[in-house]
Amino acid sequence: MTQDLVIEATRGGAVESRHRASLAVVDGEGRGVLVHGDVERPVFPRSAVKVFQAIPLVETGAADRFGFDDRALSFACASHSGEPGHVALAADLLARAGLGEADLECGCHWPFDQVVALELARTGGAPSQLHNNCSGKHSGFLCTAVHQGEATAGYVLADHPVQRRGRDVIAELARTAVGDATPVGVDGCSIPTYAAPLQGLAGGFARLVSGQGIDGGRAQAGRRLMAACMAEPWAMAGTRRACVTLMEAAPGRVFAKTGAEGVFCGAVPELGLGFALKIDDGATRAAEALVAATLATLWRNADPALGERYEMLSRPTFRNWQGTETGGIEVRGLES
Amino acid sequence: MTQDLVIEATRGGAVESRHRASLAVVDGEGRGVLVHGDVERPVFPRSAVKVFQAIPLVETGAADRFGFDDRALSFACASHSGEPGHVALAADLLARAGLGEADLECGCHWPFDQVVALELARTGGAPSQLHNNCSGKHSGFLCTAVHQGEATAGYVLADHPVQRRGRDVIAELARTAVGDATPVGVDGCSIPTYAAPLQGLAGGFARLVSGQGIDGGRAQAGRRLMAACMAEPWAMAGTRRACVTLMEAAPGRVFAKTGAEGVFCGAVPELGLGFALKIDDGATRAAEALVAATLATLWRNADPALGERYEMLSRPTFRNWQGTETGGIEVRGLES
Repeated sequence: MTQDLVIEATRGGAVESRHRASLAVVDGEGRGVLVHGDVERPVFPRSAVKVFQAIPLVETGAADRFGFDDRALSFACASHSGEPGHVALAADLLARAGLGEADLECGCHWPFDQVVALELARTGGAPSQLHNNCSGKHSGFLCTAVHQGEATAGYVLADHPVQRRGRDVIAELARTAVGDATPVGVDGCSIPTYAAPLQGLAGGFARLVSGQGIDGGRAQAGRRLMAACMAEPWAMAGTRRACVTLMEAAPGRVFAKTGAEGVFCGAVPELGLGFALKIDDGATRAAEALVAATLATLWRNADPALGERYEMLSRPTFRNWQGTETGGIEVRGLES
Repeated sequence: MTQDLVIEATRGGAVESRHRASLAVVDGEGRGVLVHGDVERPVFPRSAVKVFQAIPLVETGAADRFGFDDRALSFACASHSGEPGHVALAADLLARAGLGEADLECGCHWPFDQVVALELARTGGAPSQLHNNCSGKHSGFLCTAVHQGEATAGYVLADHPVQRRGRDVIAELARTAVGDATPVGVDGCSIPTYAAPLQGLAGGFARLVSGQGIDGGRAQAGRRLMAACMAEPWAMAGTRRACVTLMEAAPGRVFAKTGAEGVFCGAVPELGLGFALKIDDGATRAAEALVAATLATLWRNADPALGERYEMLSRPTFRNWQGTETGGIEVRGLES
């Protein structure tokens, strides 16, 4: 039915490594407009659905009560790099709810971005839970729990109201009985991650941007979060990050969010489309190239110059330690 | 002909990501004793054939002239972590030939191992070419050039005698007209990397350990290098590294060397076997699990306790930032 989608890593003009992928681009009625591979098989969306997970923060009124502006809302959907600005934002949001770093249950890790981690070490620092790439989402969870009058301890557990609300949003948006019909895992930051088909995940983003088939308030909450991420992309990711590059290429017109293990989700609001993709082997380099190639395809007719910009982003080159170009990435088999 | 070899990354009991692989285990006569996937297709062996590349260091007499002991010979075959001991070793070997850091042409990078890189930053350091994971191999190249009375500048280029000798060794051991019949790339450290089939690469290691089908002096040089790596595995890799764990599990009985983009090569001298494997997508986590699973299979009958040890190493588990087990790696489809 669909062509094999392969992302090649080349060296010296030859293919050195190959990544296989599945992709769903879906409209507001849930119809696939660009589909490759098996998009019915449940995949763990990981951090690519942080917008879904942040919807209750807006819907409950917690975001307004605690004065979340665009930057804070973007941060509540973030997989951030733990830069000093991100750490300060997490501390600030927690303080608004009368909480602090010790209330987080996401764990500590050194910033994933090497430049940021080395700078933290160079200045004698060490990571706290505020540096965890998910501390923005967790600050949002905690603000919501406080606003609702719920216990904050244990907010990462599957049966806590915070996680039950998140699960309900994913189930409704992805049209999937997540957890019952699909696998459940524990994510890096200790919350549950519910597997859902790419078709459903892409459809969820399309429903939010189109407003079709869902409650108006929910659609509005989702659109408010995506607008905040597009307005403040750094807060959602960080310096040098692919999500920022992808969103800054078309300010306000493309939402794109990475997830661990080669997942990417997003939306193109003015085309009324949502997308979700998974690299079989979990490689980030392939996911980043494929999301750019997908956006190139989607914009090719609607805005050819923008299509060209994404086309360029889909073909990064590799350089070695002396700066010599050694190869690059090519996406093969994407329907145009 | 062969079963599909798949390395699965699991989460919550479900398969989250999948890696495909090819594997050749070959005897001294070049016969495949365990073969999966396409082992005739040329792959870039990258750093997994550093033993082949170091053979001229021994054969020319440069290693003896400059007093290379086991630790230095192991380091000449290394993809090391840039720990202080590695950096000192590179400086020492270069000094023996009257050279220094500026003569290296491998380029600078921060140590790949995060703990090592953070410690370097914390102590106010910055990487030099001595920290490059290939600085040991390059120190060997430079010692050989000095010993041979060749210009040292440009020793990384394909037409320099150092690289021509390296190419000849690979061509002979892998029974492949590398460069003519197969792709040539530029490696991370700026030297050429010649693609060869896994069958040929595995056969090369088997020829060295068995002495079959090659010149006795060359076999001796290769065995001396592998014995040095097995005696001093830290010098060839570093603290916490898979190559060290794999070799320390069976001291003096297993040689194993990683290469970029999911390659692993090695030998089991007492069984007279060589092996070479490639993960299609280039993932290190899958290559490390598959080499352990391969060694488990090879030892299962010859030394069941050792087979069990490698079996354990082939199934690492993942933990998140709070220490919760979230999943692991499983090798599927390997013939036993």
